[in-house]
Amino acid sequence: MKALVFNGIDKLALEDKPMPAIRKPTDAVVKLDYTTICGTDLHILKGDAPEVQEGTILGHEGVGTIAQAGAGLSNFKEGDQVLISCISSCGTCEHCRKGMNSHCTTGGWNLGHTIDGTQAEYVRIPHADNSLYKVPPEVDPKSLVMLSDIFPTGYECGVLNGKVAPGGTVAIIGAGPIGLATLLAAQLYSPSWVLMIDHDQNRLKVAHQFGAQHFCEPEQAENIVKKLTDGKGVDTVIEAVGIPATFEQCQNLVAPGGVIANIGVHGVKADLHLEKLWAANIGINIIAIHIGLWLTFRSDNNAAR
Amino acid sequence: MKALVFNGIDKLALEDKPMPAIRKPTDAVVKLDYTTICGTDLHILKGDAPEVQEGTILGHEGVGTIAQAGAGLSNFKEGDQVLISCISSCGTCEHCRKGMNSHCTTGGWNLGHTIDGTQAEYVRIPHADNSLYKVPPEVDPKSLVMLSDIFPTGYECGVLNGKVAPGGTVAIIGAGPIGLATLLAAQLYSPSWVLMIDHDQNRLKVAHQFGAQHFCEPEQAENIVKKLTDGKGVDTVIEAVGIPATFEQCQNLVAPGGVIANIGVHGVKADLHLEKLWAANIGINIIAIHIGLWLTFRSDNNAAR
Amino acid sequence: MKALVFNGIDKLALEDKPMPAIRKPTDAVVKLDYTTICGTDLHILKGDAPEVQEGTILGHEGVGTIAQAGAGLSNFKEGDQVLISCISSCGTCEHCRKGMNSHCTTGGWNLGHTIDGTQAEYVRIPHADNSLYKVPPEVDPKSLVMLSDIFPTGYECGVLNGKVAPGGTVAIIGAGPIGLATLLAAQLYSPSWVLMIDHDQNRLKVAHQFGAQHFCEPEQAENIVKKLTDGKGVDTVIEAVGIPATFEQCQNLVAPGGVIANIGVHGVKADLHLEKLWAANIGINIIAIHIGLWLTFRSDNNAAR
Amino acid sequence: MKALVFNGIDKLALEDKPMPAIRKPTDAVVKLDYTTICGTDLHILKGDAPEVQEGTILGHEGVGTIAQAGAGLSNFKEGDQVLISCISSCGTCEHCRKGMNSHCTTGGWNLGHTIDGTQAEYVRIPHADNSLYKVPPEVDPKSLVMLSDIFPTGYECGVLNGKVAPGGTVAIIGAGPIGLATLLAAQLYSPSWVLMIDHDQNRLKVAHQFGAQHFCEPEQAENIVKKLTDGKGVDTVIEAVGIPATFEQCQNLVAPGGVIANIGVHGVKADLHLEKLWAANIGINIIAIHIGLWLTFRSDNNAAR
Repeated sequence: MKALVFNGIDKLALEDKPMPAIRKPTDAVVKLDYTTICGTDLHILKGDAPEVQEGTILGHEGVGTIAQAGAGLSNFKEGDQVLISCISSCGTCEHCRKGMNSHCTTGGWNLGHTIDGTQAEYVRIPHADNSLYKVPPEVDPKSLVMLSDIFPTGYECGVLNGKVAPGGTVAIIGAGPIGLATLLAAQLYSPSWVLMIDHDQNRLKVAHQFGAQHFCEPEQAENIVKKLTDGKGVDTVIEAVGIPATFEQCQNLVAPGGVIANIGVHGVKADLHLEKLWAANIGINIIAIHIGLWLTFRSDNNAAR
Repeated sequence: MKALVFNGIDKLALEDKPMPAIRKPTDAVVKLDYTTICGTDLHILKGDAPEVQEGTILGHEGVGTIAQAGAGLSNFKEGDQVLISCISSCGTCEHCRKGMNSHCTTGGWNLGHTIDGTQAEYVRIPHADNSLYKVPPEVDPKSLVMLSDIFPTGYECGVLNGKVAPGGTVAIIGAGPIGLATLLAAQLYSPSWVLMIDHDQNRLKVAHQFGAQHFCEPEQAENIVKKLTDGKGVDTVIEAVGIPATFEQCQNLVAPGGVIANIGVHGVKADLHLEKLWAANIGINIIAIHIGLWLTFRSDNNAAR
Repeated sequence: MKALVFNGIDKLALEDKPMPAIRKPTDAVVKLDYTTICGTDLHILKGDAPEVQEGTILGHEGVGTIAQAGAGLSNFKEGDQVLISCISSCGTCEHCRKGMNSHCTTGGWNLGHTIDGTQAEYVRIPHADNSLYKVPPEVDPKSLVMLSDIFPTGYECGVLNGKVAPGGTVAIIGAGPIGLATLLAAQLYSPSWVLMIDHDQNRLKVAHQFGAQHFCEPEQAENIVKKLTDGKGVDTVIEAVGIPATFEQCQNLVAPGGVIANIGVHGVKADLHLEKLWAANIGINIIAIHIGLWLTFRSDNNAAR
Repeated sequence: MKALVFNGIDKLALEDKPMPAIRKPTDAVVKLDYTTICGTDLHILKGDAPEVQEGTILGHEGVGTIAQAGAGLSNFKEGDQVLISCISSCGTCEHCRKGMNSHCTTGGWNLGHTIDGTQAEYVRIPHADNSLYKVPPEVDPKSLVMLSDIFPTGYECGVLNGKVAPGGTVAIIGAGPIGLATLLAAQLYSPSWVLMIDHDQNRLKVAHQFGAQHFCEPEQAENIVKKLTDGKGVDTVIEAVGIPATFEQCQNLVAPGGVIANIGVHGVKADLHLEKLWAANIGINIIAIHIGLWLTFRSDNNAAR
């Protein structure tokens, strides 16, 4: 089959690879219908994730159809169209039982990372019963690719960990796909306003269409926040870039009692200004991999819708 | 009256100062019976709190007797023996109503900081109704001095913000008075064990007497945690020193899904290793000033006991 | 002055009463600009609140202008236009410090209950610093009367205590003013849908205009919930009537793991079907008096807006 | 094999039954080493659980050794000594993913309830990977039988759902095995005191040995609580009996802002005095089946220890 292979920093190739096969009775092999490229893939290509071995097929998002179902699966069978979560998890280990499925002791973010991923014709999914979601008939499967990683990351790692709340204020640094998904998810909690911060005017225009009330370039952010909040700062500041400058700017924008939620994938350390923040009553939540709560929370009603 | 005055970095003098007087009807003037010295006073003398003006009387802890009660007070009268909280708070401003009394818009940590403090014969206490606690008759008032700041800081900023829980594991870096108070408070939640980390063997001995199951010098901490936790790391890591090295060590000790609670007063920035932590699911809570929950939580039963 | 006086069950009279005066330095006397009638007033007239003395002026909602400010007030002065909270609270007692201002040991719901209320030309407000809110210049004061009681009750007692959450399902029994306010407040949390249950077709029409996706008469509720939830039940069921039949229906509608939030003022006991519910994993929150969080949560931005 | 069989109300017999066999690859067959009798078994015999079919083998607690492991199991193999949880859960269904494993759509409390139980020589355990726990070598397996149901019920359903907290006050109605387990578990959170309420003087003596500070007969409870709390009531009231009288007494003992946690298995309804409680700010949590958090929370350190 054809697959997109990481061959080292800045080396990417479309290659012929053998078809994946079931290894454990809890695996499934999925034929991809749709996949996409994540900012994390670019971090891998830049060398920010040195644990990725050369020869790995990239990709951790996708919708596909089950080509082969392991004998131990209860929830899925051949022919089911499914959404693939970017993490695989057993649901029964110590970390999964604590709700930390992204740290599953025999799973976690493995696709396109420690095992072959979804940018290929077929992919093997471990712990398939707990890592796939049926595509509901009335939903366009193409749109669901956004639920493999991008939306759940914005919702869980940004909005939930950032404690967005009715009447609160929100600043999001970075208006790329993850920042924009976070903007959409933040509106579920009816904050007073969301300020989007980015260099790119086109992205800020999209942010405006997606509901942001305020937007600016990074250089203006401190001043705009001062005006908008009477000098108090922002309740929730979300870092959706992954470089030291943006993480450090979060520290200038957050209000006493506020929260910084880091979503960005970082390749180097950043400065934490404890000399200014030690009495600030703030929390910093560093949780860049989601566990699929977005997928679960509406599953009452209809699968992954 | 006699008072201990901060006259600039490393300059401290016992001086004659005028008696404080009521300025607002919500003030009280308290004659000190007992006071003490806090590590934060040492940070001030070192220059870590440049906002402290020369000429300020230091001290934010104490037990005393009300010498003069403002006309607007409802809860206290002349002659009452009271515990003084290190923070003064109105209880009615935006921050107080959110439970952030340490950021009271007309109070907070002011004693020995932005106004004259308790290392004197008399002190003026603003917002006295909400900032003093009656000394119960059956309690030794001397022991209550520990409740002005040290114990509530250990309990709220360390234990509550560090989410210590039954069966969890705890490491405390720094076995000074705050670290030891945190150790005592942590035991309210029955963790599996507490590891105390300090260079000073005498302090570690006290920690042992106070109930710590494990203790070591900083150089051994990573290895000991590895052994004790099978390589997983500690659920709650509490920084009770206030220098970059100790804050950075916290990052090496915390388990996935764990919490770092910073209690130390810091004079300089520290490195945050986001390149290692971005997927670690950890929280960092930076809340070095308490709001008196320790005092409140038992007040059902008997004042500040 | 003219005032509406409760003279016993079903006895109400517009009478001449003496003007209220400041009794404590923390009081304010407010000249009413707007007031309104609450369902609770009707419960009082029916005899459901036997603690209300004959001769009491009714009313616990209103917007007015400060006619006289006690000497101990810091936040308000004569001439300020203010929103009156239905509860008065000191902010410093044991209950207030735990966030239970509605149980303030020297306050709580007193207006039109244990002291004279707002259905009069003037009213005395105890603990005025903590019980009034400045009317922002750009807001129609008339509309703010809804914030004395109705909206905060819907928001806190219904939505927060009912744990309404994104993607969850909500049923509200009773589409009167409180039920409709709850419906509006619930939408701050983006539930999947809200079902309004009432006998009155006109009220259900208003509910539809206010954003309810589903509505029905009480007799149909069980069947409709079965269909809408595949037999699982509703995540949040809110009782906004105050009679046994409606409270008992809540028990038939709630899903395993769900919450019943009681807002209604009840005059008699109800049956709790523990023989069906003992393993149901449900919570029942009985909190019919709010504490003004609605008022606080946006006060960052602009007073009571 | 020999087994204890429920043959209708008050009819119990030791009978010969066929050995259980693996039905699904995720099952295990366990040879019992130890089992016990639960108060719930007595409720079944009384007829309080009419869903139990005649002919069912009773029992939902035990420690045993795996006699046969289904082909789909990852965590266990033949010969492992295991603790059996009273509930079986898949870990991957909608309810399990929400942490409501006791409502697992293909599991929950089934042993000795909807399928054959543990009061037999062998038992079939569905979803074995997620429903068994390895017995650590250094622990007496006999003592672990208490962890199948009794302790986790006290800890989760009583202590966690009752929100026991440092400095708070606790009353437990019923000093049987579950009430006593709750007393032990409550002490993990260092409440000010625990009051045990029971008719049986011997049980109260055991409660005293187990750490209860106060104890009384039901008739005295209201008076004793009044004295101990200055008329305020108890923060956490736990019902561990399962009859209307005890549930109704809880309502007389709970403080404003407090919580009633119901653990008892009830056969009939009870009165809920909303006419007294509507403004009381209380929560009632009705969760009589635990999900094994007790077992999970220490599993970091060593299996079920």
